[in-house]
Amino acid sequence: MRLQCPMPFAGYDTVTLAHGGGGRLMHRLIEGVIGPTFANPVLDARHDAADLRIGGERLAFTTDSYVVRPLFFPGGDIGKLAVCGTVNDLSMAGAEPAYISVGLILEEGLPMETLWQVLQSIRASAAEAGVKVVTGDTKVVEHGKGDGLYINTAGIGVVRHALAIGPKSLRAGDAIVLSGDLGRHGMAIMAVREGLEFDSEIESDCAPLHRAVAALIDGGIEVHFLRDLTRGGAVSALVEAAEAGNVHIEVDETAIPVRDDVRGACEILGFDPLYVANEGRFVVAVPAADADRTVAILREFSDCASACVAGRVTGGPPKQVTLRTAIGVPRILDMLSGEQLPRIC
Amino acid sequence: MRLQCPMPFAGYDTVTLAHGGGGRLMHRLIEGVIGPTFANPVLDARHDAADLRIGGERLAFTTDSYVVRPLFFPGGDIGKLAVCGTVNDLSMAGAEPAYISVGLILEEGLPMETLWQVLQSIRASAAEAGVKVVTGDTKVVEHGKGDGLYINTAGIGVVRHALAIGPKSLRAGDAIVLSGDLGRHGMAIMAVREGLEFDSEIESDCAPLHRAVAALIDGGIEVHFLRDLTRGGAVSALVEAAEAGNVHIEVDETAIPVRDDVRGACEILGFDPLYVANEGRFVVAVPAADADRTVAILREFSDCASACVAGRVTGGPPKQVTLRTAIGVPRILDMLSGEQLPRIC
Repeated sequence: MRLQCPMPFAGYDTVTLAHGGGGRLMHRLIEGVIGPTFANPVLDARHDAADLRIGGERLAFTTDSYVVRPLFFPGGDIGKLAVCGTVNDLSMAGAEPAYISVGLILEEGLPMETLWQVLQSIRASAAEAGVKVVTGDTKVVEHGKGDGLYINTAGIGVVRHALAIGPKSLRAGDAIVLSGDLGRHGMAIMAVREGLEFDSEIESDCAPLHRAVAALIDGGIEVHFLRDLTRGGAVSALVEAAEAGNVHIEVDETAIPVRDDVRGACEILGFDPLYVANEGRFVVAVPAADADRTVAILREFSDCASACVAGRVTGGPPKQVTLRTAIGVPRILDMLSGEQLPRIC
Repeated sequence: MRLQCPMPFAGYDTVTLAHGGGGRLMHRLIEGVIGPTFANPVLDARHDAADLRIGGERLAFTTDSYVVRPLFFPGGDIGKLAVCGTVNDLSMAGAEPAYISVGLILEEGLPMETLWQVLQSIRASAAEAGVKVVTGDTKVVEHGKGDGLYINTAGIGVVRHALAIGPKSLRAGDAIVLSGDLGRHGMAIMAVREGLEFDSEIESDCAPLHRAVAALIDGGIEVHFLRDLTRGGAVSALVEAAEAGNVHIEVDETAIPVRDDVRGACEILGFDPLYVANEGRFVVAVPAADADRTVAILREFSDCASACVAGRVTGGPPKQVTLRTAIGVPRILDMLSGEQLPRIC
């Protein structure tokens, strides 16, 4: 006899695209339904990667599926995304990425040439990131039951530091550092998907982030919190952090780097770059005294050339993120219900 | 500039369902294209699970996506399958399964009740198998770009034995032991999918196998080879073993346990139970002297109650599997090109 579902899932009888959008609805599905189902201390920590002790080793373990549309976009493709996304989830635990798995769900009729291109991209991206593909799986579904191909990667990384990196380590006074300019991945996808042309082609920021994170840790920075700014963008990551860490975070609108072409594209399309997904950007919280050195270390990496202090953890109302606007007016930021662009990653 | 695909992929311009069927075409795709792309010693070993050394620990790491149709079937569902399949891949390395990830690809419009049922099944199956769900991911694709839900699970297990379990360890004289009767998973799926009714309901054999494998290793059995008999059934697993191990394997048709109802269903539908997928059955090769004790240990487990010696490794022509039929005629067995039933797991 089957159990009956005990709750109305916050009023939704069926899954909607917003449930995968990285915003409030996905958060509710995970916090209200999926998380409680599997509750255990490792999962309950809600890191991007699980923090495991096996024998004498401390390992990070993570997984993500990739359903981005289109498969190829300026600056990357689903294969590069699948490697970088999982490498970055391990990086956000301060782990050294070591091994990944590749699970392919192929749609009948996918051109072999497309599969080959994606495999080459996975290979090149894994080589660049220094991770080995050590296990995999291939499934095929009927035409019309997929969309070309979906990829799942899971990754194992080795944790060599003794820091407790997570929202619970956020402290009033911490500086909030952004690793670079926001919004490029989302707008690169948008431009291709909608056939838009801008003066210059906007390329995704998709990149592996572990070397920049390692440089911070090796440089003796007391890293309190790390999160990559994917689905739901910078705001969703910060709101999640404020809620999980029970702190108030304040960010300065004028400090947040957004390239002119990205800002222009966002204005034309009615998007807010603070909510647009990135695939090579992260936020790091460090003690205020470490802020300048954090920025300096990050700027040594080309993917972090526009790193900057963008805000701080304050003693203000907890579980809240405030934006100090250009004209000095504070505005409370919340997650969107979903993501402006479905299937961004 | 993109690289160009250098080969015609054995004559196929596009992916077909058979490329995911566990037979010859999938084998060629993996051996000819995917494997060489990522070549490294761990992947090249072609185990169900990667054999990793991290610090002082020996770990097994594996992944599988699950696209079974329908989502619920007699004896199981996609959630139970996703846990057992990954637990069993770890088991086939003789590892103790410890942690799994759960990646969900949900189709817009999936009833929340269905998702909830599947989550409960994952929870119950993980608890039964003694593994923890420690990390996960949720993606949503548009209606018509999926089929309800697909699941990826990756798993980490701890290897505590010092055996070299794999096709290279197969030796002439080894006994080939089957852990139980064949064909139930495939015929259970078939019956639901085609709306067939038999006198008795055939239930999938879907079950975690690690405790039976651990009992063999703990019992001092010198296990040479293990493989679960999933896509492509017993024959595909044995042919892969004979090819990778460069040995000849002979199996006795009359020794192979197939339940009467399964045999009847196979006869009606024109299926050969030796090629039908199982999800709770494995083959183990052990020195002949250990054969009887292997069978006795396995039969202590309800899922292995009909374990038996079904064949042997011989000095015959290598890379070949021969079936000795009921009337004593030897017949060479080869993989099918795909699987009789697409999306069996």
